[in-house]
Amino acid sequence: MPRFFMAGANFAGGAALITGADADHIRVLRLQIGDSVILSDGEGTDYECRLTHLGKGAVEAEVLGSRRSPSEPSVSAVVLAGMPKGERSDYTVQKCTEAGASEICFFLSSRCVCRPAPETFPKKCERWQRIAEEAAKQSGRGIIPKVRILSDFGQALDLAAKQELGLFFYETGADRVGLSRALSGIHPATAAIITGPEGGFDPAEAELARRVGLTVCAMGPRILRCETAPVVALTALMLTTGNLD
Amino acid sequence: MPRFFMAGANFAGGAALITGADADHIRVLRLQIGDSVILSDGEGTDYECRLTHLGKGAVEAEVLGSRRSPSEPSVSAVVLAGMPKGERSDYTVQKCTEAGASEICFFLSSRCVCRPAPETFPKKCERWQRIAEEAAKQSGRGIIPKVRILSDFGQALDLAAKQELGLFFYETGADRVGLSRALSGIHPATAAIITGPEGGFDPAEAELARRVGLTVCAMGPRILRCETAPVVALTALMLTTGNLD
Repeated sequence: MPRFFMAGANFAGGAALITGADADHIRVLRLQIGDSVILSDGEGTDYECRLTHLGKGAVEAEVLGSRRSPSEPSVSAVVLAGMPKGERSDYTVQKCTEAGASEICFFLSSRCVCRPAPETFPKKCERWQRIAEEAAKQSGRGIIPKVRILSDFGQALDLAAKQELGLFFYETGADRVGLSRALSGIHPATAAIITGPEGGFDPAEAELARRVGLTVCAMGPRILRCETAPVVALTALMLTTGNLD
Repeated sequence: MPRFFMAGANFAGGAALITGADADHIRVLRLQIGDSVILSDGEGTDYECRLTHLGKGAVEAEVLGSRRSPSEPSVSAVVLAGMPKGERSDYTVQKCTEAGASEICFFLSSRCVCRPAPETFPKKCERWQRIAEEAAKQSGRGIIPKVRILSDFGQALDLAAKQELGLFFYETGADRVGLSRALSGIHPATAAIITGPEGGFDPAEAELARRVGLTVCAMGPRILRCETAPVVALTALMLTTGNLD
């Protein structure tokens, strides 16, 4: 059954109203009145609908039933990444959306090379949100992960500490926990993954992470680029929680 | 201790001779005669050396000892990917090198949109090999994964079937094995990961894969882009074999 991802569609009163590009898309696919489609609301609910009206720029459908989107992972995972340079942030947003993140936040920490002016934040977030929406559509997600910039590193720690599992990836130090051990035998409902910018974290930041109760983790002996690390960590979490089966 | 990745350095007779850009790099770092460095030969061996001569364009060192590179994973994993369009292949090479692939091969299968002319293969491979070398250096690998184009899909299957574990990722079908189950409790010395091009595989290709003994796998309900799937699969393999600790 064709599935359409349509944030902002109106599902009130047992009917769905689809307008704009989504409506055009349905027309292009030559769907007919009476055809069944699945409409995702972008917030985790899929609506099974039957098309009732195909107008120019507006399509209407009858809602037959709804369910939690089956493509959404069982763990709600927020990715917190040190602000990377240039296109790396786009990549982080796209790949983490595909890999199942519920939210993607960038933060500034002491070793960030990229320090955009706060007045550029809204435009950056808008761009990332578009990338997240596109990736969510392509990968069949049930939600569009929110993308935002946190005010500082402390806010990232606070947000991570609120999750059932909080993993802080640090590239040095003997007392780090191996990733497979950090994930072994647990099935958290909420999780956070914190990774650093190009230069990694400094020791004081790692110490702070430890103090707020995060698990300071290693990710193997190979050094991952700052845009690769969040995807690898998220994949590991999705695998061990049964969300890659 | 500073580590230099120098494919082609000469380690004959207990001495190492470093020339070209690598020699310049050592000079730029202001290392002195008597300083210890680790030189990787790009084929899995690390040499602990003491600098004995710092000349213009040539550096010499005494070899104190050698060992298998500790950053190399315990599993030798070949990534076989359906030829993707444009820059996606660059991405596959870079990320799979970081994630620990031993070799990266592209192949043409029935749904490949990108079908480069064979006369362009050498130039493409040269470019990918440069990307692999750069990524291997940055991530501290002990080898540079070889990158090549296979003659056809059959060759990809043959190569995969020769490995101890062969995973074929297929996007549809009820009889696929979940990725966590496919990897559960095994520690292969060699493995292959086959993923499709943009359009995926056709049913006959999946059937062939099954017939040569590959495990036909799912990778969760989200649809990964063709350049994301190999990295996710490789990460899962590295995690379950203890190579992300």
